[in-house]
Amino acid sequence: MSKVLVLPGDGIGPEIVNEAVKVLNVAKEKFGLDVELDEALVGGAAVDAEGDPLPEGTLEKARAADAILFGSIGGPKWDAIERDKRPERGLLRLRSSLGLFANLRPAILFPQLADASSLKPEVVSGLDILIVRELTGGIYFGQPRGIKEENGERVGFNTYVYSESEMRRIAKVAFELAMKRDKRVLSVDKANVLEVTELWKEVVTEEAKNYPEIQLSHMYVDNAAMQLVRAPKQFDVIVTGNLFGDILSDEAAMLTGSIGMLPSASLDENRKGLYEPCHGSAPDIAGQGIANPLATIMSLAMLMRYSLERGDVADAIEAAVESVLDKGLRTADIHTEGTRKVGTEEMGNAVAEAL
Amino acid sequence: MSKVLVLPGDGIGPEIVNEAVKVLNVAKEKFGLDVELDEALVGGAAVDAEGDPLPEGTLEKARAADAILFGSIGGPKWDAIERDKRPERGLLRLRSSLGLFANLRPAILFPQLADASSLKPEVVSGLDILIVRELTGGIYFGQPRGIKEENGERVGFNTYVYSESEMRRIAKVAFELAMKRDKRVLSVDKANVLEVTELWKEVVTEEAKNYPEIQLSHMYVDNAAMQLVRAPKQFDVIVTGNLFGDILSDEAAMLTGSIGMLPSASLDENRKGLYEPCHGSAPDIAGQGIANPLATIMSLAMLMRYSLERGDVADAIEAAVESVLDKGLRTADIHTEGTRKVGTEEMGNAVAEAL
Ligand SMILES: CC(C)[C@H](C(=O)O)[C@@H](O)C(=O)O
Ligand SMILES: CC(C)[C@H](C(=O)O)[C@@H](O)C(=O)O
Repeated sequence: MSKVLVLPGDGIGPEIVNEAVKVLNVAKEKFGLDVELDEALVGGAAVDAEGDPLPEGTLEKARAADAILFGSIGGPKWDAIERDKRPERGLLRLRSSLGLFANLRPAILFPQLADASSLKPEVVSGLDILIVRELTGGIYFGQPRGIKEENGERVGFNTYVYSESEMRRIAKVAFELAMKRDKRVLSVDKANVLEVTELWKEVVTEEAKNYPEIQLSHMYVDNAAMQLVRAPKQFDVIVTGNLFGDILSDEAAMLTGSIGMLPSASLDENRKGLYEPCHGSAPDIAGQGIANPLATIMSLAMLMRYSLERGDVADAIEAAVESVLDKGLRTADIHTEGTRKVGTEEMGNAVAEAL
Repeated sequence: MSKVLVLPGDGIGPEIVNEAVKVLNVAKEKFGLDVELDEALVGGAAVDAEGDPLPEGTLEKARAADAILFGSIGGPKWDAIERDKRPERGLLRLRSSLGLFANLRPAILFPQLADASSLKPEVVSGLDILIVRELTGGIYFGQPRGIKEENGERVGFNTYVYSESEMRRIAKVAFELAMKRDKRVLSVDKANVLEVTELWKEVVTEEAKNYPEIQLSHMYVDNAAMQLVRAPKQFDVIVTGNLFGDILSDEAAMLTGSIGMLPSASLDENRKGLYEPCHGSAPDIAGQGIANPLATIMSLAMLMRYSLERGDVADAIEAAVESVLDKGLRTADIHTEGTRKVGTEEMGNAVAEAL
């Protein structure tokens, strides 16, 4: 039996997770999956109920689960509260506590949505990049950090730090994943300025010796940000640290024009994982029933593939999403003339039915 | 009398700077400018000649100058030498020694080159963003930094640090510049994760009180990287730290599709400045006479505007560049069907003539 913990979170989180759970229940029946579902509070919802964005009870359930289906967190309501209680901190602590060091963010252009991109069709058609971002180290977690008083003024500081073993294990994940794709890995650094990324480049290069079939290349982060705009199809797998990965994966996601479609997985050493859509909690449209649930449903597919090792179920869910797109169903964020605008629930029902 | 120091550097640097100097000499005559030119070595060329990417003599001349016209530095030839001698380090030391803390990077779409962008014309036509990047602080210069041995493995580390006064003075530059534009400033941070940028956001917000006409907004760096792709025309002035500025300014530059056209200025407290094209040293095409000199010529225009306070000369140089584009002259990097492909020298001559 597998345990899946559902963490709806804030904003549109509950609505979109609802539809993914609907699809999960259909998949359980169809494929005879032995999956037990549980649910808990996280983010602003948990702050409101228990004064903590990651309550002990939620963390315990998360530790016990094989996989976590996550909605989204945050919103203006919790912007002004003290640093440690902000919704984001709950997510960061969850990633760190569970050792979810490998963040996989595919940037794929759905042919049905090619028009949605702000880039010219020939630049992005067929786009299929996988960004592998280190998620539990780097400047996100480095010590010392804070705001101090010095020479009569405030000084803010953070530490960008990686150990060799942290670099090696994320490089390994990238190489393994690339072996199942086009066998090309780009490592992104700023080795001409930052010593920590100079070591990063060195360690990734060493680790690549264990993968003789992989074609490894390197790029400075500024150039990578540029090349993603100029010619994104040159990339297969991109591996980088926590902060550069945050920036580049969002940039890459937006190349597709449909961030409402893109899933992500955050894995530990044993492929236990947290699965969440790339988009945020969109408080402006929360509760209106118009949010796009497909990124969360695609995240469920990743959950099946990586944590439950059911690639067949993942394929079936992805095919169901594609078929619904083929039928012309679109939520507001991806709606164009000649397609049919539907709400969150109708979209979820359509995928469940197609499955 | 004004002193301008010319630092051609490496790769295509000497070729493109040559054309800018040609234009400068015409401007001197036409506008009766009292400008004295000097030249010195920097980057790889200086490493080869004197074993140092920023020799003492070059730094002295730079200190004595009112403005510096800089080509570009670096190339595979100097990739393997020890860290402190790499060409980039010469540039970083130059910026730091001269206190050139304000880096201005316009991202402008030339209507004549609208096709060159990888983005759809409606997304970028009329694009005119000014990125103001802090250039002498942040993680580029923060201490401690290095690679150490810990628990039997190597650990790389850098420090992201800003004092209140550093933040305040760059915010001021951005607000002053915005007052002459559309009066909108976006400050980019990652305040939900990094304390140093939490303080950044606070200080910029405080400083904005002195500019009641300015409309200030804030965005996380990952979202900014995304919004630049989605809808870049929403921005007027963007102000941010050294590292985020490095990444976002290159991304923004590439939106125009013609990085060979984009200049930059790096100013100190007294508007002394270093002016350089946004593109690199392009070692692959160095010495072939095909590089685009227009970014360097546009950098010369910025030099006239900011350091020599001759906005009229700057306008004339920019108009000369536009007229050459209108005539259909294009270097290889911006060449399209129906326009005339010219080399570096012919392009420089045409601008000099138009002036
Ligand atoms: C919410 C925030 C802390 C988070 C991050 O920066 O990691 C988000 O941007 C992401 O990419 O998942
Ligand atoms: C060459 C390098 C050190 C430099 C930087 O990162 O500042 C360059 O990328 C730039 O943006 O001028």
